[in-house]
Amino acid sequence: MKSGAIELGETKTSTPKNGMNKGVAILDFILRLVALVGTLASGIAMGTTNETLPFFTQFIRFRAEYNDLPTFTFFVIANATVSAYLVLSLPLSIFHIIRSASERSRIILIFFDTAMLSLLTAGASAAAAIVYVAHKGNTKANWFAICQQFNSFCERTSGSLIGSFVGVVLFILLILLSGLALSRR
Amino acid sequence: MKSGAIELGETKTSTPKNGMNKGVAILDFILRLVALVGTLASGIAMGTTNETLPFFTQFIRFRAEYNDLPTFTFFVIANATVSAYLVLSLPLSIFHIIRSASERSRIILIFFDTAMLSLLTAGASAAAAIVYVAHKGNTKANWFAICQQFNSFCERTSGSLIGSFVGVVLFILLILLSGLALSRR
Repeated sequence: MKSGAIELGETKTSTPKNGMNKGVAILDFILRLVALVGTLASGIAMGTTNETLPFFTQFIRFRAEYNDLPTFTFFVIANATVSAYLVLSLPLSIFHIIRSASERSRIILIFFDTAMLSLLTAGASAAAAIVYVAHKGNTKANWFAICQQFNSFCERTSGSLIGSFVGVVLFILLILLSGLALSRR
Repeated sequence: MKSGAIELGETKTSTPKNGMNKGVAILDFILRLVALVGTLASGIAMGTTNETLPFFTQFIRFRAEYNDLPTFTFFVIANATVSAYLVLSLPLSIFHIIRSASERSRIILIFFDTAMLSLLTAGASAAAAIVYVAHKGNTKANWFAICQQFNSFCERTSGSLIGSFVGVVLFILLILLSGLALSRR
């Protein structure tokens, strides 16, 4: 706290603002943990999805895996990347709890948070678009709803989107918090 | 400049920082204009896409419009919303050029910029996922590549994604700039 005040070249005592900044930093840490759980769960749920239908012909076994659809592979990669980033950002978040006046690290965090928000949103919404087609099909394009056959496959992939979208909302909050912390130094 | 210094309760002269903040605010304004052009062009290009094939049977005319695929409708809505937001945010951006010390309006901008970034990314990547299926099809799910018939329709929809993705990159830069401006008050 003191070293931060010296660094900024200010002499006024800023205890309440610093206290609030500490609160913001702790909230930041908690939100990161929750987002990590969400994206990790999403990635694992999607990555382990497969369904083999109980009937088969002599030559074909009807089997659906997540990587039959390239978009779902992208979804898993996006979630894994964001999870790894969140783990890496946790030490920086702890550093912000201890030294709430640091400035450059916050800007770096804002930048990477924003990039990761984009990646996560891209993965989640691309997968959602495919899940929508899988559920409803599209008569104009002659795409059939595969969910009528692969029922549990569809339920699993749809469900695994939730964690990602929770992560998106949390990232928006994280960026807002970083902005608040930057403005209240 | 002076009123800002008084507002903050500081007595030091901060001309170089304020000058840089003015530069950041002007850059912010320009980036917003470019992003507006990109999203508007994307929305209009997708919204006016349709193709009627030169052959038809007695009962069916083969015609593809953007709203045959719900995801493309979402794409147009997302781009229209983001364009409208960008127009509304321009006055605030001009306000930041004049008064570069304002703080609350910047945080409000960061929040809405982040939300709009999410919306735009969601629209663009969902549309990209559908365009991918339209181009490549998916043999496992029995979805056919419709681009073999609707050639110009596919080219138009693919091309209209570009403006949106440019917009996404610009939004990331905008949020970074806002963070920089907040830290350098």
